[in-house]
Amino acid sequence: MPRLRLSDGEYARRRGTIRERVGERGVEAVVLFGANNVSYFGRFGFIATERPIALVLSADRAVLLVPRLEVEHAREFALADEVVDYPEYPGERHPMAYLKDVLSGAGLERATIGVDSDGYGRLYGYRGPKVSELLPDAKVEIVLDDVEAMQMVNSEEELELIRESARWGNLAHVYLQEYCAVGVGETEISMRASFEASQAMLRTLGSEYRPLSWGRSNASAGFRGQVGKDSALPHAMTSNARLKAGDVLVTGAGASVWGYGSELERTMVMGEPSPEQARFFGLMLEAQTIALDAIKPGIPCSAVDHAVNDFFREHRLESHWRHHTGHAKSTLVHEAPFLDIGDQRTIEVGMVFTVEPGIYVPGFAGFRHSDTVAVTPEGIEMITYYPRDLESLTIAL
Amino acid sequence: MPRLRLSDGEYARRRGTIRERVGERGVEAVVLFGANNVSYFGRFGFIATERPIALVLSADRAVLLVPRLEVEHAREFALADEVVDYPEYPGERHPMAYLKDVLSGAGLERATIGVDSDGYGRLYGYRGPKVSELLPDAKVEIVLDDVEAMQMVNSEEELELIRESARWGNLAHVYLQEYCAVGVGETEISMRASFEASQAMLRTLGSEYRPLSWGRSNASAGFRGQVGKDSALPHAMTSNARLKAGDVLVTGAGASVWGYGSELERTMVMGEPSPEQARFFGLMLEAQTIALDAIKPGIPCSAVDHAVNDFFREHRLESHWRHHTGHAKSTLVHEAPFLDIGDQRTIEVGMVFTVEPGIYVPGFAGFRHSDTVAVTPEGIEMITYYPRDLESLTIAL
Repeated sequence: MPRLRLSDGEYARRRGTIRERVGERGVEAVVLFGANNVSYFGRFGFIATERPIALVLSADRAVLLVPRLEVEHAREFALADEVVDYPEYPGERHPMAYLKDVLSGAGLERATIGVDSDGYGRLYGYRGPKVSELLPDAKVEIVLDDVEAMQMVNSEEELELIRESARWGNLAHVYLQEYCAVGVGETEISMRASFEASQAMLRTLGSEYRPLSWGRSNASAGFRGQVGKDSALPHAMTSNARLKAGDVLVTGAGASVWGYGSELERTMVMGEPSPEQARFFGLMLEAQTIALDAIKPGIPCSAVDHAVNDFFREHRLESHWRHHTGHAKSTLVHEAPFLDIGDQRTIEVGMVFTVEPGIYVPGFAGFRHSDTVAVTPEGIEMITYYPRDLESLTIAL
Repeated sequence: MPRLRLSDGEYARRRGTIRERVGERGVEAVVLFGANNVSYFGRFGFIATERPIALVLSADRAVLLVPRLEVEHAREFALADEVVDYPEYPGERHPMAYLKDVLSGAGLERATIGVDSDGYGRLYGYRGPKVSELLPDAKVEIVLDDVEAMQMVNSEEELELIRESARWGNLAHVYLQEYCAVGVGETEISMRASFEASQAMLRTLGSEYRPLSWGRSNASAGFRGQVGKDSALPHAMTSNARLKAGDVLVTGAGASVWGYGSELERTMVMGEPSPEQARFFGLMLEAQTIALDAIKPGIPCSAVDHAVNDFFREHRLESHWRHHTGHAKSTLVHEAPFLDIGDQRTIEVGMVFTVEPGIYVPGFAGFRHSDTVAVTPEGIEMITYYPRDLESLTIAL
């Protein structure tokens, strides 16, 4: 049976690590508001809204504050010593007054408190005080860098979830490619492929499977508008184009497994590629190979992007450059660190990156593969494994 | 032909209104970072990432700052006098340095500048300076309340898009109900219904249709985990349950049209409802009717929620209460103001609300309809129109 969830030991280790890490600087408790951070330390996946949710990690306890509509949900799924609820936002008494009660009750009124942000963000019309305003005698310190540094390095358990995600993103992409045909709409192909892969995934994984994330559940594959000349827009939005002979297509596929994802993107061509299409495709593939070969632990992230940029310069592709080589990837769409000339952070074993240098020719086409790789002591493990060569990605018409 | 997009005049009016509104307080320019706000004033729908995008509205110009990967996309779709791009985040020069150039170039170094937030948020690992740090001699004022106040009241053009959304959410829900059968998985039913409704919608609306929002495109309907006893969890997460005889189902449906949405939720029962199911369903329906009857311009939002709460008390339903009556709805999942005892803002003509008091019986079932209504001079217009009665919502087995 594949791994479909993190062990409770994993969460215990995370809590131990963050307490130790910030404890060295005198931080006595950590308050987390970000949905991703609450989930990371609290095993609670939920729909983030204007109703704040906060996880309070003190020396030996984890208290989760939720709105009343989440109380049974939290008691069933969250890993917390106590779930405290407030009635509603805005309500007659502000949710942050309840958070103040929790913090005061834990004797933290004069403590040094680490937070991922000083108060809940202004999501969906939310307004409220900062933690530093709630507890004017406490010292409030942003510890988001510490939290993100932990999230950047994946354990073997996390890697297994990302690999499982890649398997179903791959299947969705197989269907996507299979369904490509002249005259069919991009949305129809995307939705059919996502449906078929999701049904296979759910039947294979059974009732143990939980996406644990909202809006990114199941397996999916699609084009997101990068069809024909709009493939030259790296972040196009769907326009429901119908596929035509000669179109270049840039795809994207993935799946969510216990909140973890993967990223698989491919450039495909509808029918026999033109010489110009084949040339840019080949250059893109070379650039990606250079990046894949460059990644190894101990070097700065920037080195990988520099290697790609050197290739762009050598082949006079600068005017076709639109973005850096890649980003970290685990539970969010994008994550730090970035394979970018401006990111001097060191690549470490257990980091997971997308590798996706792209070549964009406005008015003609865009060319980008994205693969997800994990950093190993020797270099990388390819987590996504869909064929990368042009022949495999040419749609017979 | 139905309305599928806002006119350019609508955007011009919005810009005039915000300039006038904050101009009275001496604000000379507005800088918007929130994706929803950039779209609201700039007609640009995009995927928000760690790469900041900012719309600068000065007295007579609109300048859009985008990362290079969005430059052609922005030039094609945004309504801006100028599109300025920076290479990448983090890059060798920080994106905010480019924003500083734009603001300085417009002579705003010592101006009073309104912002929706003082700097770009910490999305996906982004870090950067505040606007007030970029321009230490400027006076920076948060004008998010002004922006949100405008967004709360919908023009006739906006209402037309919300009505169009409701039409396709309704179709998705028809399919959802039709596909409900014992033994079938919730995800299979949801994905099939969303597929069929989306295909009909795309064929009906044609190439003029643009969702303009990412991840909420097309028409959809589903259960999101509120199946059987988990229907008692107002924000359950999908667990891929298979439907059983006797299950209570709580659904959700909608569609995105030029970024505008609607919310349709229904309580359905698999087979002949038990007396207890019928009783709670009836009470829920009464509570919703009370709320629908209460909404009218000129009263505080709280009054509607008080009317519902009085009903809960009269029928001793307090222990089954989990959330307020509703929220505003146009381009986001939830929006202010809220139909909540703690929200004293006045209901105005053109506001759009969800009306969705729920009754939750842990371990048994949950009961909630949600309808989207627009406030009119006389009361409300029902925008969603799916049947609300138990007979219509009973699935024959």
